[in-house]
Amino acid sequence: MATLGDICVSAAVNLLSAIAFLLAFAILRLQPINDRVYFPKWYLKGIRGSPTSSRTAVGKFVNLDYSSYLRFLNWMPAALHMPEPELIDHAGLDSAVYIRIYLLGLKIFAPVAVLAFGALVPVNWTGRRLNASKSKELTFSNIDKLSISNVPDGSKRFWVHIGMSYLFSFWTCFTLYREYKIIAAMRLRFLASERRRPDQFTVLVRNVPPDPDESVSEHIEHFFCVNHPDHYLMHQVVYNANKLAAIVAKKRAMINWHIYYENKYERNPSQRPVTRTGMLGIFGKKVDAINHYTSLIDNLSKQEEEERQKVRNDPDAIVPAAFVSFKTRWGAAVCAQTQQTSNPTVWLTEWAPEPRDVYWDNLAIPYLDLNLRKLLMTVAMFFLTFFFMIPIALVQSLANIESIKHVFPFLASLVEKPSVKNFIQGFLPGLTLKIFLIFLPKILMTMSKIEGFTSLSGLDRRSASKYYLFILVNVFLGSVVTGTAFQQLEQLIDQPSTEFTKTVGSTIPMKATFFITYVMIDGWAGIAAEVLRLTPLIMFHLKNTFLVKTELDRQAAMDPGCLDFSISEPRIQLYFMLGHVYAPVTPLLLPFIVVFFAFSYLVFRHQIINVYNQHYESGATFWPDVHRRVLTGLIISQILLMGLLSTRGTNKITLVLIGQPILTFWFYRYCKGRFESAFIKFPLEEAMVKDTLERAVEPTLNLRIYLQDAYVHPVFKRSELEKPMAVDDEEENPLIQTTRASRLSSMPESDNEA
Amino acid sequence: MATLGDICVSAAVNLLSAIAFLLAFAILRLQPINDRVYFPKWYLKGIRGSPTSSRTAVGKFVNLDYSSYLRFLNWMPAALHMPEPELIDHAGLDSAVYIRIYLLGLKIFAPVAVLAFGALVPVNWTGRRLNASKSKELTFSNIDKLSISNVPDGSKRFWVHIGMSYLFSFWTCFTLYREYKIIAAMRLRFLASERRRPDQFTVLVRNVPPDPDESVSEHIEHFFCVNHPDHYLMHQVVYNANKLAAIVAKKRAMINWHIYYENKYERNPSQRPVTRTGMLGIFGKKVDAINHYTSLIDNLSKQEEEERQKVRNDPDAIVPAAFVSFKTRWGAAVCAQTQQTSNPTVWLTEWAPEPRDVYWDNLAIPYLDLNLRKLLMTVAMFFLTFFFMIPIALVQSLANIESIKHVFPFLASLVEKPSVKNFIQGFLPGLTLKIFLIFLPKILMTMSKIEGFTSLSGLDRRSASKYYLFILVNVFLGSVVTGTAFQQLEQLIDQPSTEFTKTVGSTIPMKATFFITYVMIDGWAGIAAEVLRLTPLIMFHLKNTFLVKTELDRQAAMDPGCLDFSISEPRIQLYFMLGHVYAPVTPLLLPFIVVFFAFSYLVFRHQIINVYNQHYESGATFWPDVHRRVLTGLIISQILLMGLLSTRGTNKITLVLIGQPILTFWFYRYCKGRFESAFIKFPLEEAMVKDTLERAVEPTLNLRIYLQDAYVHPVFKRSELEKPMAVDDEEENPLIQTTRASRLSSMPESDNEA
Repeated sequence: MATLGDICVSAAVNLLSAIAFLLAFAILRLQPINDRVYFPKWYLKGIRGSPTSSRTAVGKFVNLDYSSYLRFLNWMPAALHMPEPELIDHAGLDSAVYIRIYLLGLKIFAPVAVLAFGALVPVNWTGRRLNASKSKELTFSNIDKLSISNVPDGSKRFWVHIGMSYLFSFWTCFTLYREYKIIAAMRLRFLASERRRPDQFTVLVRNVPPDPDESVSEHIEHFFCVNHPDHYLMHQVVYNANKLAAIVAKKRAMINWHIYYENKYERNPSQRPVTRTGMLGIFGKKVDAINHYTSLIDNLSKQEEEERQKVRNDPDAIVPAAFVSFKTRWGAAVCAQTQQTSNPTVWLTEWAPEPRDVYWDNLAIPYLDLNLRKLLMTVAMFFLTFFFMIPIALVQSLANIESIKHVFPFLASLVEKPSVKNFIQGFLPGLTLKIFLIFLPKILMTMSKIEGFTSLSGLDRRSASKYYLFILVNVFLGSVVTGTAFQQLEQLIDQPSTEFTKTVGSTIPMKATFFITYVMIDGWAGIAAEVLRLTPLIMFHLKNTFLVKTELDRQAAMDPGCLDFSISEPRIQLYFMLGHVYAPVTPLLLPFIVVFFAFSYLVFRHQIINVYNQHYESGATFWPDVHRRVLTGLIISQILLMGLLSTRGTNKITLVLIGQPILTFWFYRYCKGRFESAFIKFPLEEAMVKDTLERAVEPTLNLRIYLQDAYVHPVFKRSELEKPMAVDDEEENPLIQTTRASRLSSMPESDNEA
Repeated sequence: MATLGDICVSAAVNLLSAIAFLLAFAILRLQPINDRVYFPKWYLKGIRGSPTSSRTAVGKFVNLDYSSYLRFLNWMPAALHMPEPELIDHAGLDSAVYIRIYLLGLKIFAPVAVLAFGALVPVNWTGRRLNASKSKELTFSNIDKLSISNVPDGSKRFWVHIGMSYLFSFWTCFTLYREYKIIAAMRLRFLASERRRPDQFTVLVRNVPPDPDESVSEHIEHFFCVNHPDHYLMHQVVYNANKLAAIVAKKRAMINWHIYYENKYERNPSQRPVTRTGMLGIFGKKVDAINHYTSLIDNLSKQEEEERQKVRNDPDAIVPAAFVSFKTRWGAAVCAQTQQTSNPTVWLTEWAPEPRDVYWDNLAIPYLDLNLRKLLMTVAMFFLTFFFMIPIALVQSLANIESIKHVFPFLASLVEKPSVKNFIQGFLPGLTLKIFLIFLPKILMTMSKIEGFTSLSGLDRRSASKYYLFILVNVFLGSVVTGTAFQQLEQLIDQPSTEFTKTVGSTIPMKATFFITYVMIDGWAGIAAEVLRLTPLIMFHLKNTFLVKTELDRQAAMDPGCLDFSISEPRIQLYFMLGHVYAPVTPLLLPFIVVFFAFSYLVFRHQIINVYNQHYESGATFWPDVHRRVLTGLIISQILLMGLLSTRGTNKITLVLIGQPILTFWFYRYCKGRFESAFIKFPLEEAMVKDTLERAVEPTLNLRIYLQDAYVHPVFKRSELEKPMAVDDEEENPLIQTTRASRLSSMPESDNEA
């Protein structure tokens, strides 16, 4: 067990590295050349012009104003400066609510930390169990003296811990309730204050049954004319344009290469650039690169046009799904919430996602398939969670010195060197695991895609659930109980269920130092690295050097990135869980977690203001998931505390704790009933209010024209290649007159549509 | 362990008692005096007139036609004679679907029994484990030779059992799927073919929020005028008439006593009957009975009138709930399925139950209360299931000889007699338990009422769920594992989870004979007793003697009873479970279960045709529950089989069985998605079709008048006392011209309303 001194050293190291990252960030962000890496959001909004136009030659790339370096931390107060309503307007509700998760962590754990230090630390410190048993147990430290380990078995002092546990749970639930209420209100206000959006009028209809006499389109038209006669307006069938989308993507890549070689030629006009026709431009015949890519692009353009015609005219290219639009929001709300026919597996209606949120590939999956896919993915998820070590161990056993020598004989002499050999032997297994963990979110996302969700936001939420399960079993339980997840599973089955919680519970105090170190490395230093954006920085400069010719190209080379909910939210949940588990056991962990939440809040608030650009806006539909997972962590912590206390000679008073998980679960059910529907359904009253308002303000609105192209597959939108989709909204109704907007308005009329 | 011989004796005894019941029934039902006990349904329908009017003096009471006794079993084919569509028309869909549960049992277990006898019995019989181990285990019988106990440990023969288990599960799921499909279609056809009914147009709105400026009624009117402008028609507020209902009930009892004494006086005019004013007519002053009750009734009539005025005029008597009616079925379907406002805890809408299905007391419970009540009742149900023996043991310990002597000293000498003492000591504890078990359904129903369901059908379904849990834990597991439910719970917690299934699984073959006896006593003889209707028979003759003066009184004295879903369905589920558990283990049990299902089907088909009169018609909304519980039983049986086999040296091949519960659970989820909504929601297409049809057929229909009094609390209906509510429907639109209908039409106009 680590002593307080060890922890201090570790804290110092991690603090220093965090500070180093922050210093690097502070310096890099002041350089004009990096401006598009650290403030892309403002470029996308069109509010920030290129700084390179107004400086001297050197000043274009390096900031020479020394005074600005002195204020290198002033981004922190700036990040907190923007008020929340403006933040929602600027970054969207999803982002604004996402950073509230960190705020929630602060709200929960700051008071809990104060309470724990006020009440539990003195009780633990004066417990003197570890002093008394000095002769028997030698391995204890000051940290353990502050933890529950220092209280003698069967002591009356445990009542304090039990009382505190109830208090913490109550405080957590109270805070969660208040937060849920606030966010439900924010969501409703957001939806109500929104401008007209196509998805307010539109319902996604899936599983349209085949009809022998009518085409899909006619069938849909007739069905809704009959069953929603007063409200049906129009519909948009969905084309199976996956092949077309692939051609378009390929063409775009070719265009990039074309530009690259043209730039090369421009800089060095004496020599025409050449390339090879084979794989990766390494093998095959040498040809003139510019001509080669020009002909390739022409070819693809022709193919694209053919495919486009084919899709438009082939009735088989229409999938049995459609976006049906209504004359009023009320009509759409009704259709989305009701069952259409007596067979609940056809004519399934749900709210249409935002046009840019649609995941087009999954719109045509039949009902039985969906069920089978869910079953398969559940089983797959089970095996992935509990048995993922098996394939990795297999790969690790293959990726050893012998196999390297076997596959690459020319490396044999190199890998035989002792230093290299040691490095490989120590490094390869870890690398394999690391690669797997890097690919894990992608694997989980693929699994979610197979399950058949129709919106990107749905996919994100689902992947987050899966990732949370994985982290819970393999990171949390895996760190507490030694052994693989599979061994834990075996234990869980072969032991009495109480025994497992006892084992886990009693191990928890011993792992406190490990988790403190984990919080510092993953939480503190990790977040500081986040703000530095090293990968996008490098990528931008590479692109800038090789691909950028015009201002528009530079715009395209920016990679603002986005909050990846499916990866980062489950990681936050781990901190919530650690906080709940250790609050009554080792309160020393709490300050570390409080610092994590505060620092993250600051960093991510800065990032969503200046950097990230979300791909979609779901209106915080993810909050019920966040709420559920915080409560899951809370219930697990309550059960583990019961397990821990029952090993400490307090079997009877442990029974007092049994009410906690029951009440918490009830609280979960209550909140679900009270708030969840605000995130799923659109109430008729709100719809009616908006409809009435709109009718009064714009009596002549032609909704048909407004909705005409809203739900067309992106490859069919003419201006798709020129303009990123995500900024459509802001462009049409900019906050202030911007350079980008004025630039756009000078473009041909047709580009302003979509 | 019982031998085959013992079983045969037991079977003979039970068969004889069943036959005795059937004979008694055959004779009693032919007596004209019992006609109203055994054919009340036909009287209620008005098709059958009183037989007493057309016979000789003796023939009025006793059937003298000897030839009819020879055909004493002819009710059996008669019961099967009525085709199903006519049965639905005659007895309602609830009843017709209820007896299909027995049919489902037959469909599942008849082929399973054949298969089991064809494949498993030979495999078991030739296993010869019990022959070989004769020296060690002496207690085995021929029954065990037919069971899985006869197969040697680790034998390859277990593959046959595993294969058969998969086959049985597949067959069960297949049958369940087909049945679910049929019943969903029956329900939709039933709803579509129905005549106009008030609940098709009506939605129950609960939790109307208070408004400072408007009354509840105005608030409702305004809200729906704004949010459903094209569809809202009218609404009916709900009065808190519980006190009034109590007065009416008291008055009715007084009227009964009045009639009783008038009859007495009529028969013996020489002496005015007297009664005492105190408790139960035993204590207090002597008074003239007829005058006494006349004055009491006058008094109550006055009170009733006052209360009626008070309720009608007091705004506080209006509860924040209402029945809101719409112009079309489409409008009602939309309102019932959508969320009205952004706060999902107010303006809750759901389909209105049938007027006679409404449980009026629960309409005004606020949302948080509902949640708290559910929590409390869940905890209470847990304690009731696992700890019900504690209060009973307490009562048993009080109800002993000593306490009897203490409380009733004058009985001291009597109870000291050895024979009486033995009787009391042996009898009292059993009696206490029996009384508890008789009251159990009432307790469960009260718990369901506290939970706040708004319809009688909902209450029945909920109580059935509770009763099923109780039977599962205390009857099934309690019989298999000795010890109280609480001890089992302790075992379950303290042992590994696999150990518990192993314990239970390995005990199962030993309990086969017990359950065979159980099936014969509870199933065979119990059902035969059901058809005899002993209690209603006695009650009818008592009432007939003391209370009946007019033909209408005799009508009221009939007690047709009804299918009590909340009690009888969970009992059937026990048989399903026994069948599934023993099918792969001791196939000998199956024929007994098949006979039970066949016999019950016959008896209950007869009963719903001739006797029972349902209080409400829910359109088979209970089927999803039945389906779920059959599958629950199936999954439990699959897990127990795994437990059993893993104690028989076949750990590895047992793993093959793990797919069964997973697939079965998936099947449950699939069916839920595929069919359940047919039992919960009313699809818009169907509503639209019916609306269109009605508009074409009856363009001048005034719906407002039709719905005016539909959802008035029963105590406000004028004719309520004279006429049973349940037959309203049939009266208005009788199948054929009946004596009752012609009688009714000669009454004053006002009585034909309601």
